[in-house]
Amino acid sequence: MPELRKDPITGRWVIIATDRARRPSDFSHEPEKVKSGGFCPFCYGNETKTPPEILAYRGNGEGPNTPGWTVRVVPNKFPALGIEGDLGRQGDGLFDKMNGVGAHEVIIETPEHSKTLAQLPNKQVEDILWAFRDRMVDLKKDRRFRYILIFKNHGEAGGASLEHPHSQLIALPIVPKRVREEVDGAKQYYQLKERCIFCDMIRQEMESKIRVVNENTDFLTIEPYAPRFPFETWILPKSHESSFENSQTHTYENLAKSIRDLLMRVEKVLVSPAYNMVIHTSPLFEAGNDHYHWHIEMMPRLTRIAGFEWGTGFYINPTPPEEAAQYLREAEV
Amino acid sequence: MPELRKDPITGRWVIIATDRARRPSDFSHEPEKVKSGGFCPFCYGNETKTPPEILAYRGNGEGPNTPGWTVRVVPNKFPALGIEGDLGRQGDGLFDKMNGVGAHEVIIETPEHSKTLAQLPNKQVEDILWAFRDRMVDLKKDRRFRYILIFKNHGEAGGASLEHPHSQLIALPIVPKRVREEVDGAKQYYQLKERCIFCDMIRQEMESKIRVVNENTDFLTIEPYAPRFPFETWILPKSHESSFENSQTHTYENLAKSIRDLLMRVEKVLVSPAYNMVIHTSPLFEAGNDHYHWHIEMMPRLTRIAGFEWGTGFYINPTPPEEAAQYLREAEV
Repeated sequence: MPELRKDPITGRWVIIATDRARRPSDFSHEPEKVKSGGFCPFCYGNETKTPPEILAYRGNGEGPNTPGWTVRVVPNKFPALGIEGDLGRQGDGLFDKMNGVGAHEVIIETPEHSKTLAQLPNKQVEDILWAFRDRMVDLKKDRRFRYILIFKNHGEAGGASLEHPHSQLIALPIVPKRVREEVDGAKQYYQLKERCIFCDMIRQEMESKIRVVNENTDFLTIEPYAPRFPFETWILPKSHESSFENSQTHTYENLAKSIRDLLMRVEKVLVSPAYNMVIHTSPLFEAGNDHYHWHIEMMPRLTRIAGFEWGTGFYINPTPPEEAAQYLREAEV
Repeated sequence: MPELRKDPITGRWVIIATDRARRPSDFSHEPEKVKSGGFCPFCYGNETKTPPEILAYRGNGEGPNTPGWTVRVVPNKFPALGIEGDLGRQGDGLFDKMNGVGAHEVIIETPEHSKTLAQLPNKQVEDILWAFRDRMVDLKKDRRFRYILIFKNHGEAGGASLEHPHSQLIALPIVPKRVREEVDGAKQYYQLKERCIFCDMIRQEMESKIRVVNENTDFLTIEPYAPRFPFETWILPKSHESSFENSQTHTYENLAKSIRDLLMRVEKVLVSPAYNMVIHTSPLFEAGNDHYHWHIEMMPRLTRIAGFEWGTGFYINPTPPEEAAQYLREAEV
């Protein structure tokens, strides 16, 4: 069973994932290559090579774990957290720990091995978003969980270990520290002004336009004012909503458009970089609040993170967001 | 002039370093190679290829910016922050910014291009520590600064862009968020118990011994209870002291021993990995307090950091610190 441990000084939780690689010789000194060609467990016909599917959208009326699906969700074969058991919270002198209880799932985004998210039809990206939502709605019923994180690692430098397009979902028994910080920061602002800070930001950005990349009826795509990384980009719903899974039906279609639009611009301007994309949404027991505003953060992996950043959480970004926005805005897609 | 910008939600500051690379084409798609052979601005005879030295230890009585030094400190040629000017704090609607005022220096650790820190004589490592201290004591006089960060990036994957052994110093006009968090976490514990949490941790670790790597009269080397990374290691002074630069004279000699001992073990067990090493010390205006305890954190770069970690500040670590400690403890050095 993996273990959750809390750093007593900062309150940061860490998963000690004992089921994964761990000996000194297990750390390869070469960056791991994303397999090109060869066997892929996410392609049609290999459905039995993954753990049995949790959810799949398929139009052909065939049974589970067979080809014909368009989006497929399976448990991660090497989960960072285990789904069985209770939390078993306990102390160890000064220290706190609990069992690594949680869900770790893989959303296989398409049967097409070599496509990128930007190259998929809009309906397909929308279906991926519906799959995210379906899984969140289901996992929310499990009262052990406090937060559901959905993220995508694209490309080797982004940490993807398989080439076939996929996202991941992790349900956690705690609210991670960075999420807590973001939600509490927004809450403080609300207590002071009785306005959502994200709504205020959207208003200011739409007026000044200098950091806007694109927009549609429901979503605004911007370079944030204080980005940690060059070309870090956020997609924000224009209407206040604290939780991704509670969005209006029509928003998923427009979110799919915004995501594809952004990724096409990024592929063009930065020549198909590796990236990470994360859905920031409310902790599970705090849904439906007035202060937090769910959104997506996308970070291309262009620079190395080194000692300075680890030591301080203080980032050096060589690209002003106003310039990054201009490049992305002017890209012809 | 670089700009410091504050994320209004989390309060995280970012340096927008406009003097550095910034266009899309400036981001190479290949990881930058540490130059082996060829010209090195940190080697003897090339003293005029760096900005004029700020400090150097030399025994030969020669003038500045000539060979013969043992440790040499120069301004970073591509500084993330500029030393001139005032802070110019200002708002921009919702947002806050200030001028990127600060110091960014390079500590050239030895004239020997190909040596690693572990391979240097103890006296040489001790001199490097004295140079850190001398620079901190000098920069503390500048009332614009709130924090001095000293760190070392070793190896390509660690973010080092030059092979010649060196560390960096950055003096900042703000206290970075992660530092604030760590200091405040320790302060909260002190308010509750009237004991330093690091002193308590040292006591518990020395009793249980399972996470101890090594120790000498003044320092304890341990794998922390909740490490973010495999083989993350901390070196802690056994006596309470809140600031690195206020340590007793004899501690620098023993710290040099602890650093070399750790790096020799790491080179042996993990086959000379890239790593980052950071000195965690009190903010400048809070020196001499009872709650914070300066120390060193060393992180080998063995795993990739991906979307999950960025999204949450929540780390998956495949190596229990008890096992890592055993490997390092048993390494024959």
